Amino acid sequence: MHRSCPGYVDEPFASLVADYPGVEAYSPADFRVEWGPVFHRGRLDGSARVLVIGQDPAAHEAISRRILVGEAGQRVQGLLARLGLTHSYVMLNVYLYSVFGQAAGYRHVKDPEIVEYRHRWLDAVLLDPEVSPNVTAVIALGTLAKRAFGVWEGSSPERAARAATLHLAAVRHPTYAEGSARASGQPLEDTTAAQLADWSGHLPALGAAVVPEVTPNLRPYGETWTEQDLVAIPEQDLPAGSPSWWRAVDSWAVREGPDAQEKRASIRVTVPKGARSWPTL
Amino acid sequence: MHRSCPGYVDEPFASLVADYPGVEAYSPADFRVEWGPVFHRGRLDGSARVLVIGQDPAAHEAISRRILVGEAGQRVQGLLARLGLTHSYVMLNVYLYSVFGQAAGYRHVKDPEIVEYRHRWLDAVLLDPEVSPNVTAVIALGTLAKRAFGVWEGSSPERAARAATLHLAAVRHPTYAEGSARASGQPLEDTTAAQLADWSGHLPALGAAVVPEVTPNLRPYGETWTEQDLVAIPEQDLPAGSPSWWRAVDSWAVREGPDAQEKRASIRVTVPKGARSWPTL
Repeated sequence: MHRSCPGYVDEPFASLVADYPGVEAYSPADFRVEWGPVFHRGRLDGSARVLVIGQDPAAHEAISRRILVGEAGQRVQGLLARLGLTHSYVMLNVYLYSVFGQAAGYRHVKDPEIVEYRHRWLDAVLLDPEVSPNVTAVIALGTLAKRAFGVWEGSSPERAARAATLHLAAVRHPTYAEGSARASGQPLEDTTAAQLADWSGHLPALGAAVVPEVTPNLRPYGETWTEQDLVAIPEQDLPAGSPSWWRAVDSWAVREGPDAQEKRASIRVTVPKGARSWPTL
Repeated sequence: MHRSCPGYVDEPFASLVADYPGVEAYSPADFRVEWGPVFHRGRLDGSARVLVIGQDPAAHEAISRRILVGEAGQRVQGLLARLGLTHSYVMLNVYLYSVFGQAAGYRHVKDPEIVEYRHRWLDAVLLDPEVSPNVTAVIALGTLAKRAFGVWEGSSPERAARAATLHLAAVRHPTYAEGSARASGQPLEDTTAAQLADWSGHLPALGAAVVPEVTPNLRPYGETWTEQDLVAIPEQDLPAGSPSWWRAVDSWAVREGPDAQEKRASIRVTVPKGARSWPTL
């Protein structure tokens, strides 16, 4: 039997996916609006125990239509596994659309039309009595996610009161190490070790704040990623019929083109070698 | 406001997408099982007035996760428009997975495990009292679809009785002209004219059998496709957040690779030039 994400049938989600902002809120100069909005990943049925806030969807997410599916998502899934969570979480992003150019991400985090719609989602997963009752912690991935949560928290007494009941873990973004090494010239090993030390430091308090589904394993990360630190996306997180390799660790979607114009226009989807189950051609 | 396909939440569809056959029924030598099953397009809520039976999903369908979305789908959408149908239809395929090699399609149409699951879907859309009551006609696209419907019709008295209430239009497959020209060496203009004459010939009886939503226009097709003959896929047929160009006439997905092995493994998704709304890079 296969499990799958049922999508957005119930309220308030049916209305949210009917009423998403487009170019009037998200400038095509700064966001890849042309690939469509990607809304969430995980449970919208009241079973979520943790809210994860990411940044924006990338290439894998533009195809699978769920957020945090690529390598960043697998790292987060591994963090949740350490906390004893296998599927009782919900994930939202700061932005509905993929950021075009890193700096653009910082410019728009407080744009009123972007904030207003983001707050409707945050209200749904943190305040709606049928969706949010079991959420006890928020994991904000990176600076923008932390700021977005802060904007929500500071925007009304009701939101502030709810935030006061939640443990906030503002951790390094799951691909902080790569971004930081590129930007600073530091060796990737060093930025990776720094990121993993940051994640390790958050484990004890997160472990105390979250009711696990299975026995947690709060051992700290090492100095580099190991195979055990990345966990595949559960089948029930993707739409019905999604290929199994869309959930696996091997990369399968890449923006590709001979120049910037064509690269923005193209995503190549490739079955990873390990998933090529057909007779060799 | 945006409309979208709500997916497979209600029964019998929730069970159907949980229980689809894989490689035990569909050989990877003959079907692109690795791209996952694609189940349907259109209404599963009882509002469908016509069942369209297609053959198998192709590249556009592997990405959009709904059937008959590419050019074949746009031609069918145009045929439905002539009948006065804008969204009250449901579409199923003979095969859940993309056929690898045209001959393979003919070999497996009566395979018991493929038939058994296909019949569960046909029963749902033709016999289930909550899903099927308004369906008065079946449009079978091509030989395989006609045979698949015949197998269903002949498999039980209940199914035969239901089939007897339906008008069956067994029309040429929407890309018959291209396939026939390739196979026979006839000019594409001739095979196109033959296909359009075939479709035109079915219009009067179909028009009489279908209750239209809007005023039908049963005028015959010309000798070649015109712009008016192709109609874009309605927004409500694709999952929430799907880019608008996934529904438009311009091609946007192609299998691509330097050899047969890599071509089977890859689909390039490209935003059509007319949908590149960003400032030139």
